[in-house]
Formats: sequence, structure tokens, C-alpha cells
Amino acid sequence: MDNARLLKLREEMKKRGIDAYVVPTADFHESEYVGAYFRAREFLTGFTGSAGTAVVTEDKAGLWTDGRYFIQAAAQLEGSGFDLYKMGQEDVPEIPKFLEEELPEGGVVGFDGRVVNAKLAEKFQEVAEKKQGSLYVTEDLVDLIWENRPAMACTPTWILTEEYSGESTASKLKRIREKMAEEKAEYHIIASLYDIAWILNLRADDIENVPVFLSYLLIGPDKATLFIQPDETDDAVRAYLADCGVETDTYWNVYEAVKKLPENAAVLMNRKVVNYRMVSALPDGVKIIDKEDPSELMKAIKNETELTNTRRAHLKDGVAMTKFMYWLKTNVGKIPMDEYSVGCYLDNLRASQEHFLDLSFEDICAYGSNAAMMHYAATEDQKSEIHPEGMLLVDSGGHYLEGTTDITRTFILGPITPKMKLHYTTVLRCNLALANVKFLYGCGGLSMDVVCRGPLWEMGIDYRCGTGHGVGHILNVHEGPNGFRYKVVPERNDSGRFEAGMITTDEPGVYLEGEYGIRIENELICVKDEKNEYGQFMRFENITYCPIDLDGVDPELMSAREKKQLNDYHKVVYEKISPFLTEEEREWLKEYTREI
Amino acid sequence: MDNARLLKLREEMKKRGIDAYVVPTADFHESEYVGAYFRAREFLTGFTGSAGTAVVTEDKAGLWTDGRYFIQAAAQLEGSGFDLYKMGQEDVPEIPKFLEEELPEGGVVGFDGRVVNAKLAEKFQEVAEKKQGSLYVTEDLVDLIWENRPAMACTPTWILTEEYSGESTASKLKRIREKMAEEKAEYHIIASLYDIAWILNLRADDIENVPVFLSYLLIGPDKATLFIQPDETDDAVRAYLADCGVETDTYWNVYEAVKKLPENAAVLMNRKVVNYRMVSALPDGVKIIDKEDPSELMKAIKNETELTNTRRAHLKDGVAMTKFMYWLKTNVGKIPMDEYSVGCYLDNLRASQEHFLDLSFEDICAYGSNAAMMHYAATEDQKSEIHPEGMLLVDSGGHYLEGTTDITRTFILGPITPKMKLHYTTVLRCNLALANVKFLYGCGGLSMDVVCRGPLWEMGIDYRCGTGHGVGHILNVHEGPNGFRYKVVPERNDSGRFEAGMITTDEPGVYLEGEYGIRIENELICVKDEKNEYGQFMRFENITYCPIDLDGVDPELMSAREKKQLNDYHKVVYEKISPFLTEEEREWLKEYTREI
Repeated sequence: MDNARLLKLREEMKKRGIDAYVVPTADFHESEYVGAYFRAREFLTGFTGSAGTAVVTEDKAGLWTDGRYFIQAAAQLEGSGFDLYKMGQEDVPEIPKFLEEELPEGGVVGFDGRVVNAKLAEKFQEVAEKKQGSLYVTEDLVDLIWENRPAMACTPTWILTEEYSGESTASKLKRIREKMAEEKAEYHIIASLYDIAWILNLRADDIENVPVFLSYLLIGPDKATLFIQPDETDDAVRAYLADCGVETDTYWNVYEAVKKLPENAAVLMNRKVVNYRMVSALPDGVKIIDKEDPSELMKAIKNETELTNTRRAHLKDGVAMTKFMYWLKTNVGKIPMDEYSVGCYLDNLRASQEHFLDLSFEDICAYGSNAAMMHYAATEDQKSEIHPEGMLLVDSGGHYLEGTTDITRTFILGPITPKMKLHYTTVLRCNLALANVKFLYGCGGLSMDVVCRGPLWEMGIDYRCGTGHGVGHILNVHEGPNGFRYKVVPERNDSGRFEAGMITTDEPGVYLEGEYGIRIENELICVKDEKNEYGQFMRFENITYCPIDLDGVDPELMSAREKKQLNDYHKVVYEKISPFLTEEEREWLKEYTREI
Repeated sequence: MDNARLLKLREEMKKRGIDAYVVPTADFHESEYVGAYFRAREFLTGFTGSAGTAVVTEDKAGLWTDGRYFIQAAAQLEGSGFDLYKMGQEDVPEIPKFLEEELPEGGVVGFDGRVVNAKLAEKFQEVAEKKQGSLYVTEDLVDLIWENRPAMACTPTWILTEEYSGESTASKLKRIREKMAEEKAEYHIIASLYDIAWILNLRADDIENVPVFLSYLLIGPDKATLFIQPDETDDAVRAYLADCGVETDTYWNVYEAVKKLPENAAVLMNRKVVNYRMVSALPDGVKIIDKEDPSELMKAIKNETELTNTRRAHLKDGVAMTKFMYWLKTNVGKIPMDEYSVGCYLDNLRASQEHFLDLSFEDICAYGSNAAMMHYAATEDQKSEIHPEGMLLVDSGGHYLEGTTDITRTFILGPITPKMKLHYTTVLRCNLALANVKFLYGCGGLSMDVVCRGPLWEMGIDYRCGTGHGVGHILNVHEGPNGFRYKVVPERNDSGRFEAGMITTDEPGVYLEGEYGIRIENELICVKDEKNEYGQFMRFENITYCPIDLDGVDPELMSAREKKQLNDYHKVVYEKISPFLTEEEREWLKEYTREI
């Protein structure tokens, strides 16, 4: 790749007097993953990673990304004219700092005001103000130079009936309006695609593996308006929405609509999600109540229907995973296998389950040292062969009509070293410790994370990521606000408590660069335990049903209590999964869920 | 007690048109404990507890206090004209809510602006504004009706030489001024008596068991001014202060001094500590930078001199405690003992140690069911006899020239039930789990609390208090910001990390009303462990040396790992303490630190 695109961008910048232009990895909704239309940063720099921001000035061009992507980005930026800025490294300035250094007095910072959230834009504004400069945010300059840009996704929405959603949109809107009243807000702007899909009980396919639709929802005192591309709704959906008291308008009309909000209206919105152009469009007198969307917490607390259905989804997912494990372990070394082909085999097993909708994310199927890279993804062209030795890490999941799954197993494919066995057993001990903890209501993820990490920390080992994340219900597989982590991050919504009905993953691991990676991941529902004079005790219900590979476990390293926890888990796995297996598979499962 | 005082207060209120008057438990500095002069709420209501706020309107008078004091307050308020408002109970309004309900339109809320911090006063102001009313804060009405009010404490200050403080005042002021520069503050007002004493390396005796002196410190770009009662400093102290670049002024002049701060000055202060009158006295244009005092974190991280000396103090304290334990366990049932007399015996043992200064708090010496009350204090008149059965809980500590201690042991005085033994052993397991945890730098108290509570939570038991608190160095025995707790409390400075050099208590317990109380408390220094590719690992060093009473321990309930931790601890105790004992005591200690 040459830097023709960069030169063209600089031309457009020059025409407009823009001194620095910022191109982040984002859609208009702060979605975690973005569709092809929104990969402007990739188009500009050639770097394909999921996270990274490009900044272009007259004489500098930089790409900021995090540790997961240093190697990949360095390779892909070769000859692009972009320098790599390794985020988090000591001598690398953060973007606002870089802008401050590079921007001339009276300079102009440009970006597409729709792909930068209001909170982040504020930082750019501060930089511009320090230099007596200004922002230029009304144009997407990359669009001007992007020939053959992919179209914006526009897939049909479908209704998730109450049988599957468990709560009507009318009821959800009522609860949200109650929260709005508490916050003294007359209007509420929602930009989160996940929250809109949850509120309206609609799903679509605008982002790969994330069944959402590009849209905004404006909730007023009496009516709500969904801004959506007209082709995404048919008559049935529009009639359904009308029934829910929701009218529809065109996606692009949202900016005009918020301009027309009453002067002095109080508007609830999350400025970390709503984009800068939207906030700029608000009339001057509007009072912004900057809080998390009330729907964020509501949708994290799954209702009884969602929980019952999610258990069903996990049963099907467990059958697919167990059949996969049987096939893998009995055939490895006998038939050719590589990371890509076994991933396809697993995908087919999932797809053959009733009510399967889609994968919930791209499989991670990583053999040997590849598994030490947490975000490794094999492709048809780039993959490793699999042999009957060492370990294979498989992190995968599906969307079913009943719910969404996320599971990781690390399979032992042949002889492993004592060190591998020690690490495998310790990761298992970490996983079991968290899954079996009993705690008082009031604990959040910050309070519980150490329960999982403890056994690894004791050995001087850590995994450089959270212990677990919330899981969306036929939505993004990563969902807040629940999660397990040990470091306070004030910008995060960190102070939340675990509520009954929240679903969170439990996924400790060991990752040794150049050697191997081990991760064991189950999903846990938070449920109530006893209530007594000390308060409401809580615990977790394990809803992932697939054997932990006993070939990696050294029982000598486990306490009696831990062995009982594992045996109890395997007993449940056998009971749940065996009815759906062939005779041969069942016999094998009996062996692989045996007591240790 | 009749309600003559209440009537007089209402007269004074009426004269001034005050509709509601608030009398908290506080001095002018938000000190945890207050001197006799400041016990206005006790004078008014008759309630002697350490926490509680009185509110008086024309026809209502209420005393708000927390669960520790419900029984005591109900008894003491009898006939006082004050109703008890049990804080935290569902149907009990919080004070601002109560004021909102009771205040007439245009009403006036009064309080002494010096005993309410600026943050809390804001809440009262909001209530007044809602009613188009106002505040009246310039007079201490209780003073007008309080005949023979005790004098304000005025004790001589003394210099804690650098040999004991480990850092000169010049160096501390330099570091604070660096922080002020970071915050772009030109001035810094400090009202915390603990912080002022730490910065100036001075101590006194203005609060019982807390060696501080009533004062304010105003730090400017070039000079600092200590506002203090003239009789508290002598020529030597004044010369020392002058050497440090600190001039002195009279305590009461502080309000005039802050009035004269330059217009538009940026002033760093903690509005949760600085009182309302002080903040009101600032010129209009002043920009308040509302943050924790930088000295709070600085003083929490003990320097090498403080740490070395604190270990020495704990050695002396451990000798006193071990001698006490020997005496108690070998004499109980043979000579008369009661809670008060054994407390005095222990105090004498402490006082006979070299460089002993004072007790660090009033002993808690609680026998049998009295120990279920966490804040029980026996007196010469109210005390229980001690018999050779059940358990005695002793929570005590001392100030030495080398540092401050805080230790709790629960002693077994005779036969105990299996339930007692189970609870005793579990409390011990909790204590050991936290003392032996290894963790990554970045964890705060929120992340670590569950390590301690885990074994009790598993049994459905909790203690209704934090697991531990920071310990001041010849200052308040309770010190922030470090501590262990599991609930996020946003108003608290909760997001701090454990830093090497912080000292925190580890004090889990079981408290069964009407039955017994068990607490085992050691102090832990946070120290660095290995540093590797995952980061800086941390651990705790146990600095409390006194046997855990093995008569309460059931080794069957402990893991091999836990038994080793206890045996290792007892080995250290024997090594440290035995050289300072008599032959008889030493033989006994050998038995009571034996391996299990």
C-alpha cells in the first residue's frame, strides 16, 4: 500500500484549513464491533485490527493502538506513511497530548462529529481551546476520498416475541420513563444499538455477530421515535412499533429532530455513547443529564424467561461443544486437522442445533503457542496444523433464539509437560473458586475478582485482561455493567453491584508467549442464596455444560473441596448432555466426567 | 434530665428566627473523636455515644444515631424531649429529608458553621433554597445556654524529632507544594488535625488518645502559617517552626486570614473536612480545588524510619500483651477479675514499656455476651466479673515514641462449646487468609476484603464493619485512605491502591448477640514482593506479635496450608517475644506457640 490515500486526505484537510484530523475505529453508536462501512481507519492506514485511532497532521501521520496489536500493526503500517504509536508505553504521548504538541496556535482539529462521542470530543475541544483554535466536525473527509466504499449495513429487523424476550416493549418503556422521572428528565436520547434492540424487542444483522440495527431512539414524555433506515422495517414491524407507542422516522433525521427539542428541556443521555454532532445539535438551553442509560442495567438483569431460555441455549451449545470435544480428541492425529478446519467443524455442529441464529463472535481456535495471543484468529490462509500433542484453545459461542453463549475450553491433544499440567490445574482452580463463591449482596466485580486470580497470583502469574464480562441476550456477547476486574477505573461504570439475574463469564487463563495459552470459561448466573440477619447472600449458578478436559488436571494439586466442586460440575454435565449423544459419545463422556 | 436545655435553645432560636437548628457531634476539624468542649450534642440531649446529630424545630426534637447506639440512646434520651431517629431503618428519614418536611416556606436552618463541613452544609443549603429560606450559621447557640462549659483543650506541643518522624517538615512541605503545583493551586488550607501534626512533626494532647493540637495550616507559595492557641507553643516550638518556614498566628485569626487571600486565588482544600464558615469566609473570586489533602496519602505511606520504629513499638506492645495473656490465663478463677480490673492490669503493662506515651484508644475489654457489642467499654461502675469459662475479647493499643499499635485477641478462659471453637477457628482462618495474600499492585481495599470474609460468608456469617483500617503514626489510630471493605461507597476516597508502606489492620470477627464475640486483629505492613512481566506483586508483613489462643483452635477445621501459616506466625512470635519474658512466662509461651 502506498500513501496516496494519506496525500488525498491531506489535500482535503488543506482545503478546509484543518491542521489535524482524527479517524477513530467507531460507528456512530460507540459499538464495540463495526460494520465494513465504518472501517475508515482501516481504509486509511491499512491496519485491520479492531482497535486503533489514526491522527494526521501536515507532516505527521500516526496510528495509536494497544498491546494486542503492536506486531500486527507494525507489519501492516509498513509503507503506509503512518507511524505506530504504542499506547501505554512510557514515551508515547496520548492523542490529546500529541495534538497539543503538534497543533499550531489558532489551529483546527477535525474529525467526523458522528464517530467521536461527546465525552472524548470534549478533550479535543480542550486542546483546541488551549491553542485558541477550533474544531471542524461537520464532514467525513475519509468519505470524500474513499472510492467504492462499502454500503452502510441495512438488514431487516425481526421481532423477538415476548415468549422469548420475557417483557413487552411497553413495560420496558414504562420502566425507563419512571427512571427518567426520577432523574427529572423529559427526554432521553439512546444511541446504544444494544439498548435500542433490547427495549424494542427487535433484532437484525447490521454488525457481524451482533444482531442489532443502526438506529437512535428518542423517548419523550408521551411518545418515542425510532430513527432507522426505512428498508430495515417492514409493515409488520412498523405496525408492531406503532402498537408499542413508537413511531419511526428516517435514520438521518435524528439530528434535525433533536434540534427541535424544546428549549430548556432536560435530556437524559450518556455522553460516553452519544456522538458529538448529536450533542452539538441540541438547542442551547437544553439541560443534559449525563448518566448511563437506565436500560443498561435493566437489560443486564435478565428476566425469568431470558434465564430459562438461556439455560436451554447453553444446553444446545453444550451438546455441540461436547460432540466437538469427542470428535477432536478421538480423531486428532488420525485425520488432517488445522485451526481453521476444526473451527468450521465446530461451527457446523452449532449451526445444526435448533433455533441457531449466528455465531456470537468469530471463533478463536488457537493451537500451541498461537493460544498465547488472546485475540488470535486463524483464517483459511493463515492457520496452524494440529497434531496429537500439546493443547488447543477454543473460545466460541452462538446466538440462539433462546439466548447467547460464550465458552472456552482448552483441550489436551497428547503429551503435555508437568508445567502445562500445573498451569492447567491452576486455571481450573481459579475458575472453580469464582464459580463457587458465596458473597453478601453489595459486592461488585471489583470485590470478587481476586477470588478468581488468587491461585495464579500466588504463583506470580496473571492474565492481562478482566476475569469476566457480562453477556448480552441475543445482543453483543460483551455487555456491561457487570464484569470482574481488580483495578479501579473511574471512567468505567465500576461501582455496580451484582444483582440476581446478571450473567457473567468466568474465564481465567495462563498465556506464555511462544509457549502456550490456557483458558477455561464458563458463564455464571448470579442468584440469591440465603437471607439472614447479616443480609442477602448471593452465589453463582454455572450454566455452561461441557467437560473440563481431565487429561490436563493433576488431582494432587487440588484440595478435597476443589475436587468435589469439579466432580459435582461434571456430574451435572453428564446428566444434562448425555441424553443428546450417541452411544459412543455417551460412553466417552462418562469417562471424561468421571470423579477424580 | 428534664428538657430545660431544649427549651432554652428554642428561646434562642426564636429570638433569631431560626426554624430548625442542627447540632452534630463534631469539632471544627471533622475529628473522629472530640474533646469535652465539643460535646454540645451530648450536653443538649444527654446521649453520650460518639456518633449522633440532634435537630431541633419549634415542635420537634430528634436525635439521629446509628445501629451501634440504638439501645443506649433510647435509654439516655428518656425524658429529654428528644425522639430517637434510628439511622438506616426504612421508615426513618435522613436529616436533610426531615428538614425538608419540617421547614416552613422561607424558613431558616441554623447551625454553628464551624462544626459542619462545607460538603454537608451544602445539603442543608439545598433544603433551605427549596423552601426559599436561608441559613443562619454565625452563632453557636448551645454555647449561649451551656453554663460551666468545659474549656477548649489547650495542651503543649512537642517536637517529634526526625530520628522518629523520618522526614523533615521542610521536605514534607516541599512535597505538598509540588502537589499544589500539579493541581495548579496557589494556596492550600488544611483543617485535619492529623495532617497538620504529621506535616509539622509536632504532637500534643488536645483529644484524648489522639496526640493532636487544635489548629489550621495555611500553605502559600512562599510561606505557611499555623493558626494555633498561643499557649500550645513555647519558644522552642516557635523557633523550630520558624526554621521550617512556618509562622504562627492565633487559632481564631484563621477566618480573617482566609478572607484576605488574593481574589481569584486557586485554593486546594478538602470540603469534606474544612468547615462551612471557613469556606464562606473566602473571597468571592477564589477558585476552590476540592480534593483530598495531598498529605493524607503521604502520611499513610510510612517511611522507612516510621516502619522500623513501628516494628519496635509492636515488639514492646507484644511483650505487654503476651505478659497479660500469661497472667490472665494462669490466674483466671484463682483471683478476682472483672473487665475493668483486667483492663487496668493491661494498661499498666503497656505503661511500663519504654517510651510509652498513651493508650491509642480506650480499651475494649468485653467478657461473654458483652463482646457481641463491637463498641462495648466497661467502666469502674459498669463491668462484668470474669470467670474461668467462655471467652474474653480485648481490643487495645498504645502510642509509643516509636509508633502506634492496635491489637485484638480473644482469650479462652475455660470450657467452650464446639460452636465457639468453630467460629474462633474460622475467624482465625479469615485473618490468616488476608495476612498471607499475594496480589498485584493496583488492588485497593475493595479488591481484597473478600479474601478475609470468604470463610465466614461461606457459613452465612458476616461482621457488620470493615475488615480493617489504616493506623496513624502517633496520631489517630483510625486513619485513611487505606482500609478493607467490600461495598463501594462513592463518598469515600475508595479508589486508592495499596502502596508499599501502608499499615492496615486485619480484624475479622463473629458477633452473636446475647452469646459472645470473637475478633482477632493484627496489623499488616504492605510490602513489595516479586516484580515480573505481569507487574509488581505485593504482600503483607505481619507486625503484631502475640499468640493466637490455641485453646480456641480446632486444627481439624484448618487446611495444611492454614496450619503452616499459623505455625510460622507463632514461631516468629516466640522468637521476638521470648527474650523479654521471665523463665515461667517463656515456658508458657513455648506451649502457646507450639506447632499444631
